[in-house]
Formats: sequence, C-alpha cells, structure tokens
Amino acid sequence: MRDEVEIGMGRTARRAYELDDIEIVPSRRTRTSQDVSMAWQIDAYRFDIPLVTHPTDAVVSPGTAVQIGELGGMGVLNAEGLWARHPNVDDALFRIVRAAEDTDDPTALIRVLQELHAAPIRMDLIGEAIKQIRDSGITVAVRVSPQHAVELTPDLLAAGVEILVVQGTIVSAEHVARDGEPLNLKRFISDLEVPVIAGGVGDYRTAMHLMRTGAAGVIVGYGHSAGVTSTDRVLGIGVPMATAIVDAAAARRDYLDETGGRYAHVIADGGVQVSGDIAKAIACGADAVMLGAPLSAASEAPGQGLYWTSAAAHPSLPRSRVAAGPDCAVDLRTLLFGPSMDADGVVNLFGALRRAMAKTGYSSLKEFQKVGLTIRG
Amino acid sequence: MRDEVEIGMGRTARRAYELDDIEIVPSRRTRTSQDVSMAWQIDAYRFDIPLVTHPTDAVVSPGTAVQIGELGGMGVLNAEGLWARHPNVDDALFRIVRAAEDTDDPTALIRVLQELHAAPIRMDLIGEAIKQIRDSGITVAVRVSPQHAVELTPDLLAAGVEILVVQGTIVSAEHVARDGEPLNLKRFISDLEVPVIAGGVGDYRTAMHLMRTGAAGVIVGYGHSAGVTSTDRVLGIGVPMATAIVDAAAARRDYLDETGGRYAHVIADGGVQVSGDIAKAIACGADAVMLGAPLSAASEAPGQGLYWTSAAAHPSLPRSRVAAGPDCAVDLRTLLFGPSMDADGVVNLFGALRRAMAKTGYSSLKEFQKVGLTIRG
Amino acid sequence: MRDEVEIGMGRTARRAYELDDIEIVPSRRTRTSQDVSMAWQIDAYRFDIPLVTHPTDAVVSPGTAVQIGELGGMGVLNAEGLWARHPNVDDALFRIVRAAEDTDDPTALIRVLQELHAAPIRMDLIGEAIKQIRDSGITVAVRVSPQHAVELTPDLLAAGVEILVVQGTIVSAEHVARDGEPLNLKRFISDLEVPVIAGGVGDYRTAMHLMRTGAAGVIVGYGHSAGVTSTDRVLGIGVPMATAIVDAAAARRDYLDETGGRYAHVIADGGVQVSGDIAKAIACGADAVMLGAPLSAASEAPGQGLYWTSAAAHPSLPRSRVAAGPDCAVDLRTLLFGPSMDADGVVNLFGALRRAMAKTGYSSLKEFQKVGLTIRG
Amino acid sequence: MRDEVEIGMGRTARRAYELDDIEIVPSRRTRTSQDVSMAWQIDAYRFDIPLVTHPTDAVVSPGTAVQIGELGGMGVLNAEGLWARHPNVDDALFRIVRAAEDTDDPTALIRVLQELHAAPIRMDLIGEAIKQIRDSGITVAVRVSPQHAVELTPDLLAAGVEILVVQGTIVSAEHVARDGEPLNLKRFISDLEVPVIAGGVGDYRTAMHLMRTGAAGVIVGYGHSAGVTSTDRVLGIGVPMATAIVDAAAARRDYLDETGGRYAHVIADGGVQVSGDIAKAIACGADAVMLGAPLSAASEAPGQGLYWTSAAAHPSLPRSRVAAGPDCAVDLRTLLFGPSMDADGVVNLFGALRRAMAKTGYSSLKEFQKVGLTIRG
Repeated sequence: MRDEVEIGMGRTARRAYELDDIEIVPSRRTRTSQDVSMAWQIDAYRFDIPLVTHPTDAVVSPGTAVQIGELGGMGVLNAEGLWARHPNVDDALFRIVRAAEDTDDPTALIRVLQELHAAPIRMDLIGEAIKQIRDSGITVAVRVSPQHAVELTPDLLAAGVEILVVQGTIVSAEHVARDGEPLNLKRFISDLEVPVIAGGVGDYRTAMHLMRTGAAGVIVGYGHSAGVTSTDRVLGIGVPMATAIVDAAAARRDYLDETGGRYAHVIADGGVQVSGDIAKAIACGADAVMLGAPLSAASEAPGQGLYWTSAAAHPSLPRSRVAAGPDCAVDLRTLLFGPSMDADGVVNLFGALRRAMAKTGYSSLKEFQKVGLTIRG
Repeated sequence: MRDEVEIGMGRTARRAYELDDIEIVPSRRTRTSQDVSMAWQIDAYRFDIPLVTHPTDAVVSPGTAVQIGELGGMGVLNAEGLWARHPNVDDALFRIVRAAEDTDDPTALIRVLQELHAAPIRMDLIGEAIKQIRDSGITVAVRVSPQHAVELTPDLLAAGVEILVVQGTIVSAEHVARDGEPLNLKRFISDLEVPVIAGGVGDYRTAMHLMRTGAAGVIVGYGHSAGVTSTDRVLGIGVPMATAIVDAAAARRDYLDETGGRYAHVIADGGVQVSGDIAKAIACGADAVMLGAPLSAASEAPGQGLYWTSAAAHPSLPRSRVAAGPDCAVDLRTLLFGPSMDADGVVNLFGALRRAMAKTGYSSLKEFQKVGLTIRG
Repeated sequence: MRDEVEIGMGRTARRAYELDDIEIVPSRRTRTSQDVSMAWQIDAYRFDIPLVTHPTDAVVSPGTAVQIGELGGMGVLNAEGLWARHPNVDDALFRIVRAAEDTDDPTALIRVLQELHAAPIRMDLIGEAIKQIRDSGITVAVRVSPQHAVELTPDLLAAGVEILVVQGTIVSAEHVARDGEPLNLKRFISDLEVPVIAGGVGDYRTAMHLMRTGAAGVIVGYGHSAGVTSTDRVLGIGVPMATAIVDAAAARRDYLDETGGRYAHVIADGGVQVSGDIAKAIACGADAVMLGAPLSAASEAPGQGLYWTSAAAHPSLPRSRVAAGPDCAVDLRTLLFGPSMDADGVVNLFGALRRAMAKTGYSSLKEFQKVGLTIRG
Repeated sequence: MRDEVEIGMGRTARRAYELDDIEIVPSRRTRTSQDVSMAWQIDAYRFDIPLVTHPTDAVVSPGTAVQIGELGGMGVLNAEGLWARHPNVDDALFRIVRAAEDTDDPTALIRVLQELHAAPIRMDLIGEAIKQIRDSGITVAVRVSPQHAVELTPDLLAAGVEILVVQGTIVSAEHVARDGEPLNLKRFISDLEVPVIAGGVGDYRTAMHLMRTGAAGVIVGYGHSAGVTSTDRVLGIGVPMATAIVDAAAARRDYLDETGGRYAHVIADGGVQVSGDIAKAIACGADAVMLGAPLSAASEAPGQGLYWTSAAAHPSLPRSRVAAGPDCAVDLRTLLFGPSMDADGVVNLFGALRRAMAKTGYSSLKEFQKVGLTIRG
C-alpha cells in the first residue's frame, strides 16, 4: 500500500502507525531464553538491558538511578527537576501527592508542579545528587534541556556526568532556542568529551540532522503515554511511534553509510505501556527504550504511584497530566525481571522481552530488529 | 492511495477524513514562539488571531463580541437570535438554563428554544445590540440566514455592520431559497459595499461557486461538534472536516488563479474541540476557524456553560442539542491565551496554536498551511 | 481501491460497507422541501413514502397496518405470526411484556415466544385480520415464509391480499426448502396474479436470481438491527447493508437491461436505526426501506416498546433477541413526519428524508439514488 | 489490495485479520440442515463434529473427555495438568475457585495455579485418568508439552493413548527446546505409531515445517481468547487468526501437492468466542476448531465457570488469566447442539455451524472452506 493518502484535493498525508497497530509474528525457529542477550553498548558504556529511564522526577531519584544501573539499565536524572531545585525533595513530593488527593480542585496538582519548578536550579543540589550516583559505581547519566545545556553542562561534567542527555519535548538540529539565541548543537557536542544523547525527534530528517551533530544517541518520540501526555490534543502534533522508530532507524542506517561506520543509537521514548510494547519498539528498530510511566509502578519510585513528565510543569501550556501509574506494588527488580503474578504485561518487563526474542528465535537485540511484523487489517 | 472506494458494484464513495484522523508532524527547524504571527486580514479588517465565532447565542452577546474583538478575534452576533427577538435576553437565557435543569422532561429544552425563536425579529433590538458593539470600536460582524438576508441586510448595514456573514446549515450558490424564491447571492453581494462571508459548504464545487459570487470568505462545515450536532444521524449528511477544508483551500487556489489574484478566505466551522484541532484546521488550509462549543467554557458566555447552535431551534427537525460545554471556568482571555492548568487542550486555545507553529518552525499562518501531516494507519 | 483483500495466502475477502460507514455529501444546488416527492410505485400500487414495514408482530397489527397505509407507507402483516395463531393476541402480547419484565430469568422471553409460535396457524384468524385491513381501503400486504408459501397463499389471496411478501431470513431462488421439497419460486410467482416481494438476499447473484423469478421486489438484508439480531454472532454470516443495497441495485439495472424494461424494486431491510440511515439506504440505491425497530417507538406499536423479529421464536437457534425499541412515546404520524423535539434522528423519519433530499438538491427518490457519498477514511 | 504495508522507511508489515474482521456472505443456493454433514476424520479416527478441546483443566477432566467423545468431538486431556499431579483434583479445583472469590488479593489465583503446577507429574495418576477414558470406548487423546514429550510419551502410549497432541504456546519444527536440548520432532513422530497433532503455529512456514515432520494435524494459534490470554500485551506477539488459518491451509495444500496426497489437518486454536466464529474458522480453511473458553460454560466443566489455560501457571511470566467463562448453565450436549434460549451464539455451537452451512448451501466441511467472505471496509 502506498504510504501517502490524498486527504483532499492536492494535499496528502502520510500513513503512520503506533506500536499498538503492529504485532510481532513468529515465523522461524524458537530458542531457549538462556541463549538470548539483551545487552547493548553506547560509546564505552555497556548495559545489560535496553532500558533508559525517561528523566522524570516521578521515577528517577539519585537512589533509583543507582538501582536501575545495578539492574543493568541507564537511569537518567533530570538536572532541572526537583533534585536540582529543592534541598528537601521529600517535602516537595509530599506536596505533589497531597495535591493529587485534593479531588475538589483538579488544577491544584499542576499549580503545585508549576510552583515547584519555578524555584531556581542550584548547582550544589544537583552536584550532591550526581555524587550519590557516581559513588555507587554505575554510569552517571543526567538530562538537561536545550535551553540550559550551555549554562549547566560544564558544572555537570565537573560533577562526574558520563552521559549527557539533551532533551526537550521537540528538538531540532537547525534551531534549538536558548533565550532567543540558537544553541548550535553540533559545536556544543564537538566541544564535549562525553557522549550526548539528544531528542526527541519525530521524523527521518530531524533524526538525521541530530546524528550529524555527533550525537551518540537520538531520542525518538516525546515520552507520550496514554492518559498522561496530550501533545495531540494540545498542539495537534503527533508522532506515531512505530513509524517514527522505523524512520529513525533508516536515518541510522543512512548515517552509518555516509560516515563509513558511525552508529548512532535510536532510543524510543513513548507509546510503551506494557512489556509487549518494548518488544515491538525493538522490533521496529530501536536500540533501547526510554521508560517512564511503566516504571512508576515500582515501590521505590519517588512519585509514590503518580506519574508525570516535566511538560506538566510548563507555566502556561502544560502538555502532561499527573496520573496514577500502572497499578501494582513490586520492587524495581521484580518490575524488570519478574516473577509476574498477572498476565497484563505490567511486571517482568524485560523478562518478557527476553522471552519474546526466544519465542521468535533471536539471540541479540540487533537481530531482533528484523523480526516479522503484522498490522491489523 | 486512490481516494475513490468501490462500495459495491458500480458505485463509489470518496474517502474523507476528519480532523481527528490527522496529526501534524514536526519535520524541520523549531522556532521561538515570539517569532510567530497568527494575524490575518479579510478585506480592510485585520485580526490578531484566526478566530471567528460561530454566531450562536450560547457564546456571542454584544458584550462578548466586544471582548473577542478586543482580544484579536472576530465576534459574530446572530441577527436572528435571542438578541434580535427579545428585549430581555437575560430572561430568555434563564428559561433555557432552567429547562436544561429539568431532567424529568428531556424535550423541554428544545421546546423552549423553539418557542423563543418563534418570536418575531425586531430591528430595533438588533440595532441596539449592533450599536453596543460599534461603540466599542471593534469590527462589527453579524450573521443573517439566507432566508432573511435580503430583508434584513439594509437595516443591518445602516446600523453599522462592517462584515456580513450569510450562514445557513447547508448553503449553495445556485439556489438559496427564500420563501420559495431563490436568493441570487451573486447579485446580493455585488450590491453590497461590505465584505460578505458565506456558507457553510462541504465540497470544492460549492466552495468555488460561493467564491465566484464575490464572497470574501467561505465557511466550510456546519459547525458540528461532538454531542451537540447530529446532521449525520438526522439527515445522513456529513462533511468530514479535514477533507472539506483541503478541498475548499483547493477552490481558493483555483479561484485565485482564475481571477488573477482574488483571495477568498476559508473559514473552518466544525470539528474543533480542543486547541490541537485549531492547529490541524489551519494545517489543512483554513485561514481561520469558527469556534462555538470551545468558547462556551468561558465564564462570560451567555449560555452559562450550555451550548447549542441555531439548528437546535428548528420547529420540526432540530439537528442540534443543548449540551454542556467543555468543563472549565476561566475568562475569555485565559481561554484564548492561557495560562492553562491542565493538559486537555481546553484552555489557551491560541497560545497552543502559536506554540504548535513554533515547534514546527513556521512564523505565519499562510506558511503553516503547508506543514506535514500524518494519518493514523 | 480494489475491493478484494488478500486475507492470507491464496484467499481473498471482499471489502463491504455498512450504512454507518458512509455519509451523504452535498455537492450541488439546494432545493426547498416542498419541491421534493418521496413517492414510489410497485405494480399498480403507489405509496407516498418509501416505507415498507418489517413483518414483525412487535410493530404490525391489523390496526397499525391500516394506519401506516393511511400515512403513505406499506404495512406488511405477518401471516404466520401471533395474529395467525391466537384468537386473543392481547393476551399473548401481555405474556411477552410480562416475561420481559422478569429480569430473574433472561430466557423467559424467548421461551414464551417459542411457545406462542408453536401454536398452529389458523386461516380463520388470519382471514379476519386481512379483512380488517382490506375494509379500510388501503393496499393489503402480508408476509408468508418460503416454507408455508404454497400452503397458505391460495387462502390469503382469497381473503384479499394484494401484495404478497415471501420472506425468510436467508432466501435463494435455487432452493427454498419446504419440508425437504424445494419451492420453485419462479413457478410459484408465475401462477399468481398479485405482485410478489421476496427475500432477504445479500448479494448480486441471489438478487438477480430472485428478479428472474418474476418478483416485483427483492428484499435486501435480514432485518438486522443493533442489539436485536445476531446473525453474525450466531452463524458468522453478515450482510453489510451499504454494499448489499448497491449490489442489488446493480442487479436491478442489469435485469432491467436484459428484460428490456422490467423494473424490480430493491427494498432494504436492516441497518436502519435513525432517519439518516433511511437517506443513506436510498442513496445506495434502495427504492424503499423496510423498517422494524425504528417503528417500535410508536405508541400504537403492539410490542408496547419491545422489539423482536420472527427469528427470535426459532425453536432451537434463535437469532434475534427481544429488546427495548428506541425510547420515545409519540404516535406513528409524528414518528414519520414530526415535529421532533430532539436531534437524535428517532422522530420525523421521513420528514428528515425529505429534508436530506432538499438539502442536496434532489426532487425524486430515483434521482437521489445518485447523490455523492463519502466513506470515513 | 497488497498485503504488505510500509510502516516506515524501508520496513514493511503484513496486513493480517482476525475472525472478527470477516463475515460469511451467502451467495448461492440454500440447503436443508438435514443434508449437512459436519464429520471429519484424522488418521483412522472419525469425529461427527469438528471439535477438539483445548487441553485445559478448566474444561477437560477424564469425565468430560468421555462426554465430548460421545457427543462426536475429540476431548484432549492435559497429561501435565492437575490430573497428572494431584490425586485429589477436586481439592485442587476447590482451591482455585476459592482463590477466584478472594477479591482482596487479585494475585492469589495465579499463585495457587503456579503452586499446583509445581507438584511433580505422576505417571500413575495420568495412567488412571487415561484408563477411565479408554474404558468408555471413545478415542483417547492427550496433550504433552514439547519439553516433556520424549520423557512422557512411552508411558502414555502404554496407557492407551491413541492420538498424541504435542502443544506448547509457540512451537517450531526447527528447535523445540527440551532442557536446552532440541526435540527433533521429525524423528520423534516417525518413531511413534499413533498420529500426532502439533502446534501452535502462526505462519505458513512453521505450519509447513510441522507438516513435514509427519504431524497428522497442525494447531494454528495459541488458544487466545478475549480477557483471558495476553500474548500481545506481554510479548508483543500476535497471530491474527483468520490470516493464520488461511496461511496454514495454504501450507496444507502445498504439502498435499509435494507429497502427492498426504493431508495434514489444520486445527484452529484461538479467537473463537461464539458459534459464528466456528463457522468463520472453517470458512477460512480450518478442518476443526480447538475450543476452550466457549466450553467452560458447560455445567460439567471442571472449572465450575472459571476459565484459564496452562500459560496461566507459568512460574515467572503468566500469559493467561483466570476469568469467568461465558455465562450460561447448560449441559455439554445443549452447549453443542441446543436448543438455545438466547441469540448470543453461546449455546448450540455446532447446531449453528450446521445451519450456517445449510444457509449458504454447503453439505460438507471441505466444501464450506470455499464459502465467500467479506471484510468490513
């Protein structure tokens, strides 16, 4: 089927697909789970599972970042979130949780978040948080916004950051605004000695541009999750994830070709609700998935069962709600590796990925990116 | 994909799309919101935002028309609505609100509306209302039906109307009935010295015909909004808005070409529920959107939280219900420009449009009409 | 788009459409409602509106048959229903209504219907009922099943039947079983002096075969209505009505051609829930619609607000439930011609058809069969 | 329409269809139900109806296996389920039912199942159960998993098994793991003197491979049923059943051709909820359907109204829930052959198949596999 649809006279739209629209189809040998490796490596850093956390305070504290690292994933702390602004984050979280319980005033939550994020970023606070992660021995990854990247990065690197994530809701290589001044991402990255992961993007061209800036990884998507983010409702903008991942993987392939061998990782951020979606994202070509809401079900999550992204704190146009995460109360290890006591895909997220790979006969993530797909007719 | 589907042997139907079916896809540079202009101009009248109000009493009183004008939009008063028929509109509105509360008799509301609209149109009343708008200094726009256009227009112009909106639920250029006699829209318009906006239409051909009558603007759609209007259920007639806007924009392009430069504005009336839909309507080619239900959430709205269109008052075949508008209680300014305290697209309608344009790198409405679109696969 | 889909290797299915999938699109002149005629004629009998009743006891008593005839439609009494089996139908209806109220035993209803239909058909009873209709002066139409057609028809004609409806849930021309013996419909029809309407059919070929038997009208569909009939759930068999009507209309055109002028009427039975569906059925090519459930809302309906079809009384495999009809309490005249007090398409069924024709500029049913259609993309 | 969709740049997915997506269309003669045969034969064993039970303890006890055999179907006992592990199965079932009633702890059910399945398989117990079936005179069929096939089969055959079902959730011919060692299904089958039915598979290639191992029947699908199984949510893996059955039927045809006459039966396991789905599965090319959940409505079912599959007992990654079966309380005979007191397709499962075949004019299952299909547009 042609991928361009004429929606009216002289105007076409491209057909695009969400992860929900596709399914993996077994069509070869099966394999035992023990033979499957889920490992991947970005720059010098190797991870046992293709998990990068969405840099939301609802999921990533210095403590959970360490736990996730020890479990094989990459925990990304937000250098502009609550840990960067408040000496007593527990109090801030308490206010958020209490506002969520105030059912009389549905706007209370967003107002509290907006207020908490109006406090200034303090380098001493974020430095302390980074030190806590670094001391554990795991890889230290933090996120900055394009707006504050230039200002914050030197101190962050000095504090020991090993992977820098430059992430805004929608990022481009041509023009990333900083107080009206464009951030030249290419120059910014070439000046750094640590690998940079940048995004999110939604199309081939922007993914390609970001790869050409030297980014070690490109984030695809805006972290949208059902019931939480509303980019489509608010802005009319949408990035159907299956198509966006496939396109970014095409950019990765073309960039690999034009550079004669540089491999830019594709990290899928959005549309993942249950373990089956992780398998689908890898199947579409992602090297790793960025998880937010699915991790908010962990008993260790700072959000205590609530989930939001930083877009919820926007002072005039919030594009994320605070919502209850998936309902379960297990620790992070169980959430990632089981055992599960239900068949809803909420627990044993990466045990399920391993099994999906085994059931379709693949032993590595890179091979699994070629598994057969169907789409509901 | 071909846009004609064979639904059976020898009979085809055209595939058509609603705004809900499409999404905007970012694929270029981003831009700061400050660089974005949402202004447009029709004839000599310039507006800061592409907002035209649907001429419903639920939203537009003389007072809110003035407010909307001061906020940069075009408020259109219905010259055949409550303000034209009742000296004490507050009483009429009180009866409507009270009938809506009568849950024992679900037909009470429509009966009250039918009765209120059975009262005669009084030129003194509508003249007073127009004077109130004119005195504020904003552009004066009123709506007449095709049936009463010839009869009412002279007095309306004398009262100071600057833009005339001739709007019926379904209008054609070939035959607009007036008591059995066709209204010759071409002659009617050529005799006037004010710009005329006419509609609604649902296809290329009718849009083209209306443009050739000399209309400065063509309304696309019938103001349908979910839960309120039922043209499809009642008549089987539907105008999927994304396709209808694209087609009318094609007519605008062809009319521009055949006249060597006359630009007929396309105003989209229907299918807009949240701010994201406004961006989508412009992206499909609209020059402005006609909003009804989304504005009924304003604390100043005469409908006091209720919404209906004039089709609700039809004496034998109502095609609109009275329904609760979107649930929020903010003033018009906040509704249009924020700040918003939720991510549901109900508040900050035009702040969101500005941001959508910035996030996709466009600085004017005319350019934004070319933004990339996707359709759910 | 090609209408055959490969659902797997070497097996295709045809795309087919329900009335819900399509919408009528206005694309020409408009017209005043007064200029519209909804009349049609079958054999020597002319009707003011394209309404044939589904022959269900829930809607058609001798009394309502007369009323419908006086209002311009064709009321079809079931010669094998309650009026043919019980001297006191009121008692039978009372038992049905009471069983419907027995929420403790959801199977009570079907059992009562099964039991009531196990009583023998009595020609004296059905003769009396026919006399009541005939005496009113309206056209007398009754329905027999293919199984009992040969046995019952002579007496029915003697009683004064003017139009005979031979209707089973699924009928074919090649083999209509009667106690194991095929009914030769062609010979049966050629022996009769009254016009025969036969069906239901679901495809071009069977429609064509029925036309070639000499049937004056062919019923398309099996009277399915949402929440009532379950042919798809029970048998896996379905007849998407838009496609089925279009195909039958193609058979009508080809039969007209091969006979040099015989016009076999297409009567659509199923998928009509609201007034808009009537317009869509005609737009697809139907000459008339067979209505059951939508008429059960009338205060005169024998079902007293309940609706079922004769398939509900099948002794071992019922394919119809007893369900509440649409919720309103107006008389038949209002149901057909308004005024309506709501915008849900339940009331003013044929006033709405007239308006749909006017709004799209057509003055006769035959022309309206060519109106433009869209399908949701 | 081409069956490959480009979901992004350089990556395609195949369109695939569920049974729900299709409908059977009558397009020829009709036939009396008495002329219809639903019989089929696999190896030397003939069955009056195309029913194979899913080997779940919720449906198949030694007792119900006998009943199903006497009613004309093939009851398959799970040689690794409760009857193989517990001397007192009634106690085990009581614990399951009690856990289902514990609404305070939703994980209790899965834990009980996991625990009950952790007990060792005892050959004396399964031998006793097989003897009970064998003594009744019906054909004895049992299921083993690929993991335990080699170990258990000799004793099972000695106990009198006549048809062996080797079934895992996803099986391949190339590599069926047994403690890390592949089970060579081809050698395994060629060493046996009883016919083997193996699966489940989801695509042409794996079906073909299994046929080439000498399997007398291939199971298509993984027994998924709405609300119970979650392969898609948990693993991202899905097998739309209409397409999967059609593909397996294509493999059957090609295998028949390449072997010059060996007919491998296709048994559809999944997606069947109501009687109409059985007709659709046969229409797609299945020789028989494997039913689980629909049979759990029988009053004799061991699950006492509950339904689960063995995947519910997986120790770390359950992919099936325990759920209430369809709500009715009739005996097995009525469930299969009626009479039904409702039109929901739950009762009279094979009476409905017979009628669907009659209504479309087919007298054998093999012919009915060619019936016309439509797909919702």
